[in-house]
Amino acid sequence: MAPLKNILRVVILLLLFTVNALAQKQTVDLMPLPKNYSLEEGSFVIRKDLIISVIGEYDDRIEKEATRFLRRLDEKTGLFFHQFQVEGKVPNATFEIFVDRPGKLDLHEAEDYSLTVSPDKISLSATTDIGAIRGLETLLQLVQVEDQQYVFPAIQIEDEPRFTWRGLMMDVSRHYMPLGVIFRNMDAMAAVKLNTLHLHLSDDQGFRFETKAFPELIKEASEGNYYSREDLEEILVYAHQRGIRVIPEIDVPGHATAMLVAFPELGSKDTTYILEQHAGIFDPTLDPTNEEVYTFLETLFAEIATVFPNPIFHIGGDENNGKHWDANPDIQAFKKKHKLKTNHEVQTHFNLRLQQMLNKLGKRMMGWEEIMTDKLEKTAIIHSWRGDWEGIPPKTSLYNAARSGYETVLSNGYYLDLMQPASAHYAVDPISPDADLTAAEKERILGGEMCMWSELVVPETIDSRLWPRGAAIAERLWSPGEVNDVADMYRRLPIISHELEQLSLEHKTARAVILRKLAQGHDVEPLQTLVEVVEPMKGYTRNPGGTMYAMHSPFLLWADAARPDAPVAREFNEKVKAYVKRETNKDELLVILNKWKANHAKMLPIIQDSPVLVSIKDMSANFSALAETAIKTISYLEAEQIPEADWLKDSHALLEASKENGGRTELQILQGVKLLVDQLEVTAK
Amino acid sequence: MAPLKNILRVVILLLLFTVNALAQKQTVDLMPLPKNYSLEEGSFVIRKDLIISVIGEYDDRIEKEATRFLRRLDEKTGLFFHQFQVEGKVPNATFEIFVDRPGKLDLHEAEDYSLTVSPDKISLSATTDIGAIRGLETLLQLVQVEDQQYVFPAIQIEDEPRFTWRGLMMDVSRHYMPLGVIFRNMDAMAAVKLNTLHLHLSDDQGFRFETKAFPELIKEASEGNYYSREDLEEILVYAHQRGIRVIPEIDVPGHATAMLVAFPELGSKDTTYILEQHAGIFDPTLDPTNEEVYTFLETLFAEIATVFPNPIFHIGGDENNGKHWDANPDIQAFKKKHKLKTNHEVQTHFNLRLQQMLNKLGKRMMGWEEIMTDKLEKTAIIHSWRGDWEGIPPKTSLYNAARSGYETVLSNGYYLDLMQPASAHYAVDPISPDADLTAAEKERILGGEMCMWSELVVPETIDSRLWPRGAAIAERLWSPGEVNDVADMYRRLPIISHELEQLSLEHKTARAVILRKLAQGHDVEPLQTLVEVVEPMKGYTRNPGGTMYAMHSPFLLWADAARPDAPVAREFNEKVKAYVKRETNKDELLVILNKWKANHAKMLPIIQDSPVLVSIKDMSANFSALAETAIKTISYLEAEQIPEADWLKDSHALLEASKENGGRTELQILQGVKLLVDQLEVTAK
Repeated sequence: MAPLKNILRVVILLLLFTVNALAQKQTVDLMPLPKNYSLEEGSFVIRKDLIISVIGEYDDRIEKEATRFLRRLDEKTGLFFHQFQVEGKVPNATFEIFVDRPGKLDLHEAEDYSLTVSPDKISLSATTDIGAIRGLETLLQLVQVEDQQYVFPAIQIEDEPRFTWRGLMMDVSRHYMPLGVIFRNMDAMAAVKLNTLHLHLSDDQGFRFETKAFPELIKEASEGNYYSREDLEEILVYAHQRGIRVIPEIDVPGHATAMLVAFPELGSKDTTYILEQHAGIFDPTLDPTNEEVYTFLETLFAEIATVFPNPIFHIGGDENNGKHWDANPDIQAFKKKHKLKTNHEVQTHFNLRLQQMLNKLGKRMMGWEEIMTDKLEKTAIIHSWRGDWEGIPPKTSLYNAARSGYETVLSNGYYLDLMQPASAHYAVDPISPDADLTAAEKERILGGEMCMWSELVVPETIDSRLWPRGAAIAERLWSPGEVNDVADMYRRLPIISHELEQLSLEHKTARAVILRKLAQGHDVEPLQTLVEVVEPMKGYTRNPGGTMYAMHSPFLLWADAARPDAPVAREFNEKVKAYVKRETNKDELLVILNKWKANHAKMLPIIQDSPVLVSIKDMSANFSALAETAIKTISYLEAEQIPEADWLKDSHALLEASKENGGRTELQILQGVKLLVDQLEVTAK
Repeated sequence: MAPLKNILRVVILLLLFTVNALAQKQTVDLMPLPKNYSLEEGSFVIRKDLIISVIGEYDDRIEKEATRFLRRLDEKTGLFFHQFQVEGKVPNATFEIFVDRPGKLDLHEAEDYSLTVSPDKISLSATTDIGAIRGLETLLQLVQVEDQQYVFPAIQIEDEPRFTWRGLMMDVSRHYMPLGVIFRNMDAMAAVKLNTLHLHLSDDQGFRFETKAFPELIKEASEGNYYSREDLEEILVYAHQRGIRVIPEIDVPGHATAMLVAFPELGSKDTTYILEQHAGIFDPTLDPTNEEVYTFLETLFAEIATVFPNPIFHIGGDENNGKHWDANPDIQAFKKKHKLKTNHEVQTHFNLRLQQMLNKLGKRMMGWEEIMTDKLEKTAIIHSWRGDWEGIPPKTSLYNAARSGYETVLSNGYYLDLMQPASAHYAVDPISPDADLTAAEKERILGGEMCMWSELVVPETIDSRLWPRGAAIAERLWSPGEVNDVADMYRRLPIISHELEQLSLEHKTARAVILRKLAQGHDVEPLQTLVEVVEPMKGYTRNPGGTMYAMHSPFLLWADAARPDAPVAREFNEKVKAYVKRETNKDELLVILNKWKANHAKMLPIIQDSPVLVSIKDMSANFSALAETAIKTISYLEAEQIPEADWLKDSHALLEASKENGGRTELQILQGVKLLVDQLEVTAK
């Protein structure tokens, strides 16, 4: 059946899809958007006698995923399906899944699928079961209600990813993340078709991989929080089930404090080390002139290599400040002896040893962009991370790597810990339309990976930092580059966010829990009103010097209830724009502003009873004052009156004062209020 | 230092606590209430330089718990404490913990502590570290805000538990509960001073213990959901850390389907078995005449005995319907040969073999009350579970066991899956004041254990079934029997509920997630208004015949968003009582009723878009109609008018119709509305 099916697929592709996702009106609520789709007449009514059949060559992965699909669909519809387990081919199926072969979690593995929903049948065909799994996620997102019934709309979809590397890096060193957090986030990854989980297993603040060879590592350097071999096995099984590859990272030679706590003799300085509690770039570094370091890493890497089946192995390699190398006469002597001019050349020496080591283990080296030097074998994968924050044009290393013959992955622009809006990430394309790259060079750009560095993130809040923004990045990496309508992305973002919550993600609930704590028994509504228009401080500003917070600090406070990319503030600013352009009238704005104006009075008794909120008292006052100013501005504009100079001066002073953070968050409505005041000044002139 | 401290404690006890908790005005918000306490003048201001010191003989358990206390206090106050790890005795401590010795998780182990908070010092003394852990939980509950500072009020507390067995049984067979669920619920247990976690590891629906001896059990009978040996090790470490003993249960000879799926040859019927999907009492039973059964259990029990250090081992033993025994001629022949008159005698034969087996393993047998017969050794612990639902006076087996010389634990009256209000559980005292028992017999009543049978419960909802009601039971088992003011219990219940949420319990958030799903993008508020006044159907009525639901059914629907013991409905009914007694006027009631009256109109568009909600459409209509009736009734009462007979008839018809469930929930405001209508009729006469 499969060959015929394949032919049919090609025919369908040729006949139906002469337009791509961009040319189509984007009327589906899918995220990521498929490569090609076409809505048809009618719909498939979902009934409790829905029967799923799997046809072709496959192993049990697709049966399990189809069963999981059935359970999730049952939770969505409450239909109590008759079938509760999907096992292979069955007659009278109304939903047929065709799979040519089981997929592998390798680079460039086929993830394509085609999905046809007609009023009496659903057909999902894929080259691999991984493609079929992607298709099941699409289908689940298609559930709609029509005439008080749950339906799938009739649709034809041909889909495949633009990039083969669509990743999420979780930093489990700074803050350990329990298995449940990793599991639910893998569910989220699968829902938005991400396929690579990169675990940052070691750093200055903790070592999280249970090695049998060096039990001291978890004993001395994990504070009891680590992944046992069995935990990792569970993660790998879970990931495999969802078509996700798992890449381990052991960050060397810098970011090595945790390792050196257990093995100080491997360090570049003769000292003892303590587990780092702060954030930043620290001095402790492995000694690249010490043969024991290589013996140690050889044993460690060999063990990790057996645990993680994927052929890619990430050695970190970033942010080695070289201070302990400079201060160590033996390393200086080594440098001279080997004619290594810079510390970077010393590190290259180190990296080349590691590359040989990994080659022997049958692994490809991957590392942060600093590892790229002339001598490095081209099998290495370059992880591009630096950009504006580091004073380097974004994608410099990405394009350089591609031009130099390395495969490469982009993370600059995808750092979710920096609290940028989804639109900022969405705009970052690993291959910009104007990229000056040959086809072969473009081929080497494998894709992208969002990074969740966890200095300021704990298990309770990580979901709210990852989602829904991560879905916008996932779309960037899966969908055609032409899919880039920001407004439509923001239209669909709350929809996918809603879907993700049904997968037990806690990005919505975490806030309510924190606010209830902070409210000390008061109604949370005033806190809710304010938190909706603030965002955590951006970039690296929330934690000045990396020392305001320690890893053991409380991270369930006001800033942790705040979320990046606050929709209420964004929508307010948009509404002001529309009002200023005379596209809307004042009414809707005034409803919002009057609520905000009244908010501070409601906040005061709460702050009185909740000392931890004193830090947001001024911001709360500014918020209501800004609303009052906006109302007044609108009344001037409406009356075509000109305010007194003092009033304008006060308004600007207020806008300026309102830039001050409160509880490590910032008000996001300044843009809108300023636009109003500016408009008034324009009118006045 | 410890001996002097002990003397001081005795002196304090004698001097200060001449009154007990009941005699005191219950002005503290603690749950469970301490045995004796006395609020003093002033308070201890919590500052970031708080330093904790541990003094005495102890192991690292108390240091870890003190560190956890510090982290939790930091999350409550946002103070960013200087000290981040508590390690032993340090100078200049403002909080000193005195421990005489590490405690064991044995029956009757000391859990007493005394806590003294004065304005400049906190002192916590305990015989064992377990007692100190109980005291830390008390202290955390004491945090208050005073003059915009976090403080502990000055207080003297002498506390110890009334019962040594304060348990929670989790049925992890019907629905498997992931480790995270067990961990967070152990945190909750510790918060309310429960000390026994009983894991119901096997039943007809699944076998959850990974045995190395019989890998078939988890392979064939767990659907992949089981506790590995490492998982169990983690559970035990976590429990030990919180002073909680863990009791395993393998339910035999009935409730044995899962075992028989893997080993049908051990069954009483020559057949193959499939994993049960429904709820109820089923026929599959181990064959007590088959020596292989004993060999199998001997090996299995030996393995479990090595994993669980606690000397108590629960063998289930309940609800053997005997059908497969009756139908098996060999078993009948065996019965005759051994002069066993009834199936119960056959089971006793079986149990005695098991008791010998466990004796050899150094374990005490515990079993549900059916195991109790004359021949059973008195070392067995009888678990009393039957009562009104089974047509037996409650505590029959409890008192019989105590009189017969067995130690015994009460679970009847503590079944949280039956959806009774907290007050019903709170009223159940293992030793009623009027119990006709000798002192020695009373001694044998070890305590009680709440049961969370999981036929209708999934990981997402289990917290909302356990908490906060479980805290009321915990108080019954910890506090003096004289602590039984229901109104004060209900006053403190939301406070402890709030505390539990800060421990990551999901009893509050789960509802919001489900309602958001059901609302299909609409504002959840009308759903929220309705769900607050309904409760899941009680007893065993929600799942008629055990077959309306299967284990794989959707369990995140309307009834799952509903919670037992709906406070809004309870408070409404109380308000009506007060109004009818002329203790309050109509105003507050009318505000509520007018909101309710308007609710159905808001529900209709949601139901229109969410077909799964059609099942609550009539109930929603009735709810608003009841509110309207109540408003009308009040207006008659206020105007001292008499309604027409038809109106009264219609009102009664509506009350009758409103008893109908909607989406497997029941309206809880009928009592209040009926009281109003009845009052009108009284007035009319």
